[in-house]
Amino acid sequence: MDRVPVLKIGDLLLVSIQVDLEDRLTTQLQEDLAERIVSTGAHGVIIDITALDIVDSFVGRMLATIASMSRVLDAETVVVGMRPAVAITLVELGLGLRGIRTALNVDLGMAMLRDLRQLHMGLPGTTPEDGARDLAGIS
Amino acid sequence: MDRVPVLKIGDLLLVSIQVDLEDRLTTQLQEDLAERIVSTGAHGVIIDITALDIVDSFVGRMLATIASMSRVLDAETVVVGMRPAVAITLVELGLGLRGIRTALNVDLGMAMLRDLRQLHMGLPGTTPEDGARDLAGIS
Repeated sequence: MDRVPVLKIGDLLLVSIQVDLEDRLTTQLQEDLAERIVSTGAHGVIIDITALDIVDSFVGRMLATIASMSRVLDAETVVVGMRPAVAITLVELGLGLRGIRTALNVDLGMAMLRDLRQLHMGLPGTTPEDGARDLAGIS
Repeated sequence: MDRVPVLKIGDLLLVSIQVDLEDRLTTQLQEDLAERIVSTGAHGVIIDITALDIVDSFVGRMLATIASMSRVLDAETVVVGMRPAVAITLVELGLGLRGIRTALNVDLGMAMLRDLRQLHMGLPGTTPEDGARDLAGIS
């Protein structure tokens, strides 16, 4: 496979990671995502990792990079579908996935992105960052 | 990878095929899909083949089997994301994918499933569809 598909669902983008991401594929995915966020005006990115048995520091860094990159382009990122065993290993490895939002499944991830968007669009007086940070605290 | 992830999005299921499906993985996917249709009450299945360079008779048969199986469980199937080159090869091979619905992308596939559902449920009056339509609107 030469690239990981980026699927547009309404005003969100969905990426389902199913293969080992080596350097080239990772770079390609980040480029594709940035391009699609700009071309579609998507306000959210959902990354599904149901198929991953292991999330190591390389994958953790990739997820953090995608989240930061999306944020710069005014889109929020939610990682969904983490297996219980992956969560346990992550914490044992001392990788807390800081700065990365997670949700149990795609439906809940979509709901989270919708809520974030509403906070972002509304609530006069607050800056978008405040809203996002508040929600991240409680989610 | 031991199985292809089946993602639930509202009352639809989404499968993104990114790896070569050998026999075991194909059987597993069909079992998983049937199980998820029953457990979630999904009324539609979207199969994304963006990542596939080739759709041969094996993959064609698998898609047809999934469509038939879903139909028995009262769910419709739409195949989305076919590359132009794949379509050309399919026709050259004499494989027309008969009995399989296709749409250009996930958004259009979702719209098709929604329309099919409305026809199936029977015209105005509505109810079960309202929820689906709401979700489609915001997603």
